[in-house]
Amino acid sequence: MTSRLDDFESYRERMNQRISQIDHLGIKRFYSLDSSAYHDGALSGKTKELLGLVASMVLRCNDCIDYHILQCIEAGYTDEQLYDAFNMALVVGGSIVIPHLRHAVESLDLARAK
Amino acid sequence: MTSRLDDFESYRERMNQRISQIDHLGIKRFYSLDSSAYHDGALSGKTKELLGLVASMVLRCNDCIDYHILQCIEAGYTDEQLYDAFNMALVVGGSIVIPHLRHAVESLDLARAK
Amino acid sequence: MTSRLDDFESYRERMNQRISQIDHLGIKRFYSLDSSAYHDGALSGKTKELLGLVASMVLRCNDCIDYHILQCIEAGYTDEQLYDAFNMALVVGGSIVIPHLRHAVESLDLARAK
Amino acid sequence: MTSRLDDFESYRERMNQRISQIDHLGIKRFYSLDSSAYHDGALSGKTKELLGLVASMVLRCNDCIDYHILQCIEAGYTDEQLYDAFNMALVVGGSIVIPHLRHAVESLDLARAK
Amino acid sequence: MTSRLDDFESYRERMNQRISQIDHLGIKRFYSLDSSAYHDGALSGKTKELLGLVASMVLRCNDCIDYHILQCIEAGYTDEQLYDAFNMALVVGGSIVIPHLRHAVESLDLARAK
Amino acid sequence: MTSRLDDFESYRERMNQRISQIDHLGIKRFYSLDSSAYHDGALSGKTKELLGLVASMVLRCNDCIDYHILQCIEAGYTDEQLYDAFNMALVVGGSIVIPHLRHAVESLDLARAK
Repeated sequence: MTSRLDDFESYRERMNQRISQIDHLGIKRFYSLDSSAYHDGALSGKTKELLGLVASMVLRCNDCIDYHILQCIEAGYTDEQLYDAFNMALVVGGSIVIPHLRHAVESLDLARAK
Repeated sequence: MTSRLDDFESYRERMNQRISQIDHLGIKRFYSLDSSAYHDGALSGKTKELLGLVASMVLRCNDCIDYHILQCIEAGYTDEQLYDAFNMALVVGGSIVIPHLRHAVESLDLARAK
Repeated sequence: MTSRLDDFESYRERMNQRISQIDHLGIKRFYSLDSSAYHDGALSGKTKELLGLVASMVLRCNDCIDYHILQCIEAGYTDEQLYDAFNMALVVGGSIVIPHLRHAVESLDLARAK
Repeated sequence: MTSRLDDFESYRERMNQRISQIDHLGIKRFYSLDSSAYHDGALSGKTKELLGLVASMVLRCNDCIDYHILQCIEAGYTDEQLYDAFNMALVVGGSIVIPHLRHAVESLDLARAK
Repeated sequence: MTSRLDDFESYRERMNQRISQIDHLGIKRFYSLDSSAYHDGALSGKTKELLGLVASMVLRCNDCIDYHILQCIEAGYTDEQLYDAFNMALVVGGSIVIPHLRHAVESLDLARAK
Repeated sequence: MTSRLDDFESYRERMNQRISQIDHLGIKRFYSLDSSAYHDGALSGKTKELLGLVASMVLRCNDCIDYHILQCIEAGYTDEQLYDAFNMALVVGGSIVIPHLRHAVESLDLARAK
C-alpha cells in the first residue's frame, strides 16, 4: 500500500521529464513560475505549502493533494496541523470534499509510515 | 465486477473510521451535520437523497455518485426515476458530465445485480 | 427592491428572445431540451424544479438560483421546504455557497412579497 | 468608492440576521461550524484566515474574497504578504482568477483607505 | 448601454495598472506568460483567442468572456462563428452556462453597435 | 501501456450502448445534440475538436481529454499544435491543470505509438 505514493511520485517524475523534453516555451515558463511561487517571500515557503494544500483540496485534485502533503511533511507540519488544514478545506468546500479528505488522510498515513 | 462497489464501500468505511479516530472536533461535527442533512424534515429524507445524487453528478464526484446511488436504491427509487435524475444532471452540467453518467449507470446496474 | 427580480425576469426574457432570433440550430435545440427536462416524467416536474434549484446553488449561479426559486414557488413549495433545500446545497457545497444562500433567501423574500 | 465594502458588509450583516431568523437547525449549525473553523487550534487563527482567502480566490467568489481580506487585515497581514497570497491563488487557479485578482487588489486598497 | 463594455475596459485597464504598480515579480511574470500564450505559434493567435473564449464560458467568468469577445472581434471572427463557439460552450458546460450565454450575446451586440 | 486508451475506448463504447438501451428520450437527445455540435458549421469541425479539448482540460476531466485527443489526432492536428492547446489550458486553468497535462501528454504519446 505504501506504493501508491511511490507510484504517484515516479509517474509524476517521468511525465514531468517528458513534458520538459517537449520543449514548449510557455509550458516551461509555467513550470518555473509554479516552482517560484512556493519560495520564501513576504510569506514563508512553509506557509505557502499549506496554502497549496488547501487550494488543492477545495479544487478537489487528488494528485495535487498528494504532492502538497509530501511537501508539507518536508516543511515540518505536524499531523494535527494538517488535520486542521483538512478541516478548513472541508468547511469551505463542503461534503463534496469528503472523498478527497479520505484520500488525504490515507496519503498522510502512508507517507508517515515510510 | 460487482466488487467495484464493494471495494468502494469497504474503503469508505475503513477511512471514515480512521477519520473518526483522528478525533478532530470540527471534522466530527461536519460529519454529524452531513448525516443530519439527509434526515426527514420539511423535505423527506427520500427527496434529499435525490438532491444529493444530482448535486454529486453536476459537481462530478464519482465516489459521491456511488454513495448516493446506493442510498437512493435503499430509499426506494426505481431505475426510471434515477435515469430521470441522471438526465437532469446531464442537462444542467453538460457533456462534461457524460463520463460520470457512464459511471452512474454502471454503478446502478452493479448495485441491482447484487 | 422587489424590482431586482423584475429586472432579472425582463432581462432574461429579452435576451432569450434575442438568442432565439439568432436562429442557431444547436442553441435552439439545447433550449428545447432544457425545457423538456423539467416536464413530468418518471419524476414529477415539481421534484425536478427542486433538483434544478439545488444544482444551481452548488454550482453557484445566482441567475439560475433566482429562476429556480420562482419556478419552485409556482410548483407549490413552502418556505420551510426551500430552506431545507438551501441547507442541502450548503452542506454539499460548503461555506463558499454562503453568499449564494444570502442571495437565495433575499430572492425568496422578494418573491413572496409580491 | 469606499462604500463598495461598506455596502457589502451591511448587506452581509442584514442577510445573515435574516438567515438566523429563519431558524433552520442545519443552517445554524453550519454557520457555527464555519466560525469555529477559523479559531486558534493546531494552526493559528491568523494562518487560517489566509487559507480562507486563498481558497476563496481559487474558487472565484468575490464576496468571500472581500470578507477574508477584511479578516486578514484585522489579523495583521501586511499588503506584501497578501500580494504573495494573491500570487499563490493566481498560479494555482490560472488566468481565470485575474478578474478576482483585480477585485481583491481594489478591495484591499479600499479597506486600507478607511 | 454601450457603456457596460466601456466601463469594463476602463476598470480592467485601471486595475491592471494598479497591479503592475504593486510590482510583485510572480504576478508580473504571470501576466507576461498569459499574454504570450495568445501569440501566433503552432496554433495561430486567432485560433487561440477562440480557445480563450470557450474556456472562459465553460468556466463561467463574465469579465473573461467580455475580454475574449472583444479580442475575437478584433481577430476577425464573424457573429456566426462566435455563435458556433457559444454553442460549443453551452453543450460542454450545460444549462448552467445559459446566463453567461445571455451575457455573451449582449456583449457581442454591444461591441458590434460601436 | 497502449492498452489504457484501448480500455477507455471499449468501456466508453460499452457504456454508451448501455445508455442508449435505457432509452431515455432526454438523454438520447442530449447525445445527439452533443454529436451535432462538432459538425462543420460556421466553424469547422476541426476547430471545434480543439475547442472541445481545451474545454475538457480547463474543466479537468481525463476521460473527456482522452476522447478529444483521439478526435484531434483524427482531425489532423500535429503534436506541436496540441502542445500549444495544452499550454492554453494550463495558463487559463492554472497549476491545478498540471496532473491533467501529464495525463494528456501520456495519452497523446500512447495514441501516436499505435
